[in-house]
Amino acid sequence: MIGVIAKLKIAAGKEAAFEAAAKDLMAKVKANEPGALTYQLYKSKTEADTYIFMEEYSSQAALDAHGKTEYFLAAGPHIGVCLAGPPEVQYFDMVE
Amino acid sequence: MIGVIAKLKIAAGKEAAFEAAAKDLMAKVKANEPGALTYQLYKSKTEADTYIFMEEYSSQAALDAHGKTEYFLAAGPHIGVCLAGPPEVQYFDMVE
Repeated sequence: MIGVIAKLKIAAGKEAAFEAAAKDLMAKVKANEPGALTYQLYKSKTEADTYIFMEEYSSQAALDAHGKTEYFLAAGPHIGVCLAGPPEVQYFDMVE
Repeated sequence: MIGVIAKLKIAAGKEAAFEAAAKDLMAKVKANEPGALTYQLYKSKTEADTYIFMEEYSSQAALDAHGKTEYFLAAGPHIGVCLAGPPEVQYFDMVE
């Protein structure tokens, strides 16, 4: 299994627009990707305007497929316009 | 729900001892804590010797209870002796 933590810093005043776009994406992933075992948005308790997507995939193929879905590609600009800087995405291998 | 990302940097040569202690802890959490919905060790694909625990709890009470279990407290020194520096623990609120 593959783990992903995608950290996003949101620009001032863009929080509501970001959350709307992120929730829409999250719903589509949960409805369409059985290989995305976890795909959950979280808001930091301590860092203002900082969110993460916490993600777990059953395989590298499932992660690759996620990045090619039309709804993921379509969400990019809607989320991107809300960001205060580039996303920080970290990739992990499960330790079993 | 509460999310936690605990990032751990392991000292040179301590990787096997760390993984053994972390796997033992993970097994005990999964066996005993229904409120720990996710409690999974991951190893970074890109940062040498860096691991995370990816954690989701059903409530703050479940997270608090986790930190007080005898096996979590007992694991502290076994994991601590393997670390190259202090853990970085981040706390999040689920966005629903």
